[in-house]
Amino acid sequence: MEVYLDNSATTKVCPEAINAMTQMLSEQYGNPSSTHKKGIEAREALDTARKRVAGILSCTPEEIYFTTSGTAANNTAVFGTVEALRRRGNRIVTTSIEHPSILRCMQSLEAKGFEVVYLKPAANGSISAEELTNAVNRNTILVSIMAVNNEIGVINPVSLAAKAIKRTGSPALLHCDAVQAFGKLPLRPGKDGIDLMSVSAHKVHGPKGVGALYIRKGVQIKPYLLGGGQENGMFSGTENMPGIVGFGAACAAMPDLAKQLEKTTSLRNYSLEKLKRLPNVEINSAPDSLPYIINLSVPGIPSEVLINFLSQQEIYISAGSACKRGHRSEVLRAIGLSPARIDSAVRISFSRFSTDADAQALIDGIENAIRRFRR
Amino acid sequence: MEVYLDNSATTKVCPEAINAMTQMLSEQYGNPSSTHKKGIEAREALDTARKRVAGILSCTPEEIYFTTSGTAANNTAVFGTVEALRRRGNRIVTTSIEHPSILRCMQSLEAKGFEVVYLKPAANGSISAEELTNAVNRNTILVSIMAVNNEIGVINPVSLAAKAIKRTGSPALLHCDAVQAFGKLPLRPGKDGIDLMSVSAHKVHGPKGVGALYIRKGVQIKPYLLGGGQENGMFSGTENMPGIVGFGAACAAMPDLAKQLEKTTSLRNYSLEKLKRLPNVEINSAPDSLPYIINLSVPGIPSEVLINFLSQQEIYISAGSACKRGHRSEVLRAIGLSPARIDSAVRISFSRFSTDADAQALIDGIENAIRRFRR
Repeated sequence: MEVYLDNSATTKVCPEAINAMTQMLSEQYGNPSSTHKKGIEAREALDTARKRVAGILSCTPEEIYFTTSGTAANNTAVFGTVEALRRRGNRIVTTSIEHPSILRCMQSLEAKGFEVVYLKPAANGSISAEELTNAVNRNTILVSIMAVNNEIGVINPVSLAAKAIKRTGSPALLHCDAVQAFGKLPLRPGKDGIDLMSVSAHKVHGPKGVGALYIRKGVQIKPYLLGGGQENGMFSGTENMPGIVGFGAACAAMPDLAKQLEKTTSLRNYSLEKLKRLPNVEINSAPDSLPYIINLSVPGIPSEVLINFLSQQEIYISAGSACKRGHRSEVLRAIGLSPARIDSAVRISFSRFSTDADAQALIDGIENAIRRFRR
Repeated sequence: MEVYLDNSATTKVCPEAINAMTQMLSEQYGNPSSTHKKGIEAREALDTARKRVAGILSCTPEEIYFTTSGTAANNTAVFGTVEALRRRGNRIVTTSIEHPSILRCMQSLEAKGFEVVYLKPAANGSISAEELTNAVNRNTILVSIMAVNNEIGVINPVSLAAKAIKRTGSPALLHCDAVQAFGKLPLRPGKDGIDLMSVSAHKVHGPKGVGALYIRKGVQIKPYLLGGGQENGMFSGTENMPGIVGFGAACAAMPDLAKQLEKTTSLRNYSLEKLKRLPNVEINSAPDSLPYIINLSVPGIPSEVLINFLSQQEIYISAGSACKRGHRSEVLRAIGLSPARIDSAVRISFSRFSTDADAQALIDGIENAIRRFRR
């Protein structure tokens, strides 16, 4: 039995998405920019997928722009905003625990002379509402804060930034990297004052190779990928049609998110209770973090040793994120963990398909590892 | 019977690609950055696909960087080169008939102060070797020329640029947008002195949503999409695994390109002979252009009227390119066609699956259209 508990890295594609993609690949292979019937068919499929993604964000289909990854959505949001607003200010506010697809963009902007303020998390991983509010000033053109951190699951008070922007009269756009929150927490960017939101298909049982950027109606940013003007000029390149319809199908197949959150909270609590009985296991995720992610350390067993040991038994978890191989986690450092604890940290991440049996198999596996490796 | 002759817009996905993708989607859903067995499986599939694409370009797998489209490959090549070499010069040489994913990048660079020289084609559509050679000087940092034009099929003397760069001692990198040439002409960028080459899967019976950039060993450009550092740091974002293995499978399924070129030349000649018998049909492609593309005008019948008429009979062709809906072709204007001829131009584009029967059905369709619409 395969026990896949690395769903924050990527998820198994759901049957609904596979079916939609297979049909697209074999029959509706037209280019949605073509004006003949094969093109029109493809465009209709594109529109349907767009509506389905919009449904999950409670926005209009016109506010959804397909991209090729969460990373591409993040790059477009950051560089597109800066290009649009660079004459109105020089300051950007973000956090020190963003995904690399935000942090690397920020470093690039710093090198070009922008002032980037990196808010640091408290020990529980969350950003202080007060610091966030104080960081925004009239010279700020972009605030970019992730909804849920990919390594520890902390939930950030993103909507507070909207209030700070409003109060200071700043021209800033508010961007939220919601890749880990999408399909797990009910999101309403429009209601929360969020201008731009990045999401990704492959974290919600859709395929790899597709993401989307929500751009609130009326908000103007510049495109980053330039060319034929697909996605209403915002993201050029022939659309990844099989991927996009797979994304749409995965959205349509999502259960009620609030109910699923309750179920996953039970699964998390069940797992935590058992994990806490193991000798000397330390939980790095805060109790109020997203229940889909548990970060924990098994001091004395290096992360990679534990991961490999479990992998041999077809139990799959990860060390921190899948996005930066072989680097010590910046996130765990930012929340103040000791090097020993960081080096023995692993991330368990659930999906809606995860079961108590999966959790039990993992916990048994960790227990065996402790017996075998710990002196 | 569906007669699909719009293969330069996109192609029907071959069964080999569909099978590889379906397997990837349902079984090997791991993230290639993950260190457990599901991740390793995915990484092996990625490596296999890379070898297959490299095989078609006679290069090493390490010289192939997967992107999410030909457009993304072009943006990366242009902006990545300029970012790497901006201290060494200010001049860029390209042509006026490049794809929008090059031309829009160039316009953006002009707005930032770069000098962009747009070589103009002769009446047959080709770039003059002499003008190309003269345009390159010591201040040139990038030469970007497409191998085959997407609208008229003209083949450009790209390798001459390599000689000009060498002779002038220019620091320029030579980029070639080979999206329309890949899988049709035998390409050897390494041998031809080409530093960067863009290709796309969906023009060669692979899926939409995948491209690749060849970067010659030793050539250093900057990445354009920033993040987790996938593709050896050159193209961040979780890899489009189903798309990439589909691309690899499509490459592995390619026939001998030289033999296929001969076959397609026969099909083109057969078609031209019949087209020329129709009253007042004008061929816009030069005789020595790529035989996969025939651009022609049917004066008196607007392109869209002809396309729609044929589409109703399930015969699919396009007006110019699929990449810019509703604009008068810049390429046809560049080769000096009259507005009347441009507005009645259509593009027939073959693939290796096109048959004499397809061509005959199309020609019958055009003949019917002439009877019906032309006064």
